[in-house]
Amino acid sequence: MTVRAVQRLVEAELVLYDALVSEGALAWARQARRVCVGKRAGRPGVEQEVINRMLVRAARAGQRVVRLKCGDPFVLGRGGEELLALAEAGIGCEVVPGVSSALAAPALSGIPLTHRGLASGFVVVSGHAAESYRPLLDRLPPGGLTLLVLMGLANRAPIAGQLLRAGWDPATPSAILVAASTPASFTWSGPLEHLGAVAVPAPWSELPGILVVGSVAALPEVAELARARHLSSIERTAQPRAAPASLADPA
Amino acid sequence: MTVRAVQRLVEAELVLYDALVSEGALAWARQARRVCVGKRAGRPGVEQEVINRMLVRAARAGQRVVRLKCGDPFVLGRGGEELLALAEAGIGCEVVPGVSSALAAPALSGIPLTHRGLASGFVVVSGHAAESYRPLLDRLPPGGLTLLVLMGLANRAPIAGQLLRAGWDPATPSAILVAASTPASFTWSGPLEHLGAVAVPAPWSELPGILVVGSVAALPEVAELARARHLSSIERTAQPRAAPASLADPA
Repeated sequence: MTVRAVQRLVEAELVLYDALVSEGALAWARQARRVCVGKRAGRPGVEQEVINRMLVRAARAGQRVVRLKCGDPFVLGRGGEELLALAEAGIGCEVVPGVSSALAAPALSGIPLTHRGLASGFVVVSGHAAESYRPLLDRLPPGGLTLLVLMGLANRAPIAGQLLRAGWDPATPSAILVAASTPASFTWSGPLEHLGAVAVPAPWSELPGILVVGSVAALPEVAELARARHLSSIERTAQPRAAPASLADPA
Repeated sequence: MTVRAVQRLVEAELVLYDALVSEGALAWARQARRVCVGKRAGRPGVEQEVINRMLVRAARAGQRVVRLKCGDPFVLGRGGEELLALAEAGIGCEVVPGVSSALAAPALSGIPLTHRGLASGFVVVSGHAAESYRPLLDRLPPGGLTLLVLMGLANRAPIAGQLLRAGWDPATPSAILVAASTPASFTWSGPLEHLGAVAVPAPWSELPGILVVGSVAALPEVAELARARHLSSIERTAQPRAAPASLADPA
């Protein structure tokens, strides 16, 4: 969470928040009425049109309103639609950029999105609906880029299958990251050819996990190996030297 | 800046920071020795190998070290290389995700990276070196995605030219964003066919600006028009009704 987001929450009189927003984040909104507009267990989310009207009505009533989303409001977050709805009502607003899970989850897992010699850029798409990711994945050049599929967990099999058919190397490193910013996270990494068939246990299987496809997904393992190599070389150095052969006990 | 980044700076004993890091950010590192390792006017930046060694040496000396970068350390920031150098030295580290300028600059300019019906994903590449962006841009599917070229200002002409040759519509909305998070920012928006020839004045011409190409780049203008339409409709409503024709003064 950014310092500016905290400031806006502290000043807020009304907070409309998404279901996955943490208790810790909401706690900053000390003086605000807090309304969850996201989908929660057994309850559908408030429709976008209705959220737009709630924002307009509260702003017209002179309230300081915060629309709190997980990650960045302009990355698969419909922030643009809310901005337009406010503009149509003649209401200005401030956009506070956030740390998108597209960047945070790989970073917290030790996966850089770009790395000299491995990836000079990255692509972020939504894995929620096939009609949005299918045309993109078909035309994306295999390799050289890191591919991030947000909300990609449920469709990991068709997504991996499509990439393989489009010519991606079956050995391309890949990863599944679920709830990466929480203490109870789930991480898997392995070749693209196994990505589609990974068994993800509950409760993670119900969460909007992220798929990472590209050479950088192997970096945590490379770092781990480097660390282990270093430690074993220290152990070798620290061991007492073997006695010269001529002095060794022949028994 | 995130709350966690602030916490780490407050605790830091040594901060190695990049040239574009703001004074405000550095001010949090109250008790730290602060060393700029980035390129500054008249002075080259410290080489990556040397930065890696500085990090390892300070960590081995038991210091709490922060490597402070603008944006996100894992987006075109060589964070992965520093992580590997530390791993090879047997040193662990925490990665604190940040708000990448790839996301922040468009957000602060009112440009959503995704928007239903306009873009279901986005691509981030570096415009610094032609050998890294050229193969990617050639194979990127025109439309449907938002393209972000970080450090793309200097190469805006070859980049725009390449996209047009690759089949992108010359009318595709595009934007140039420089120093978006500062009070003295520079913004241009217009069709892709004009992007390459935009005159960017000093001091912005020397900064690492961002190019945005895709339908979403037109959204600030759409919002502005919607706001203006709303205001003019209010003015019309507020004007006294014209008198019925029969009562009008014929003079």
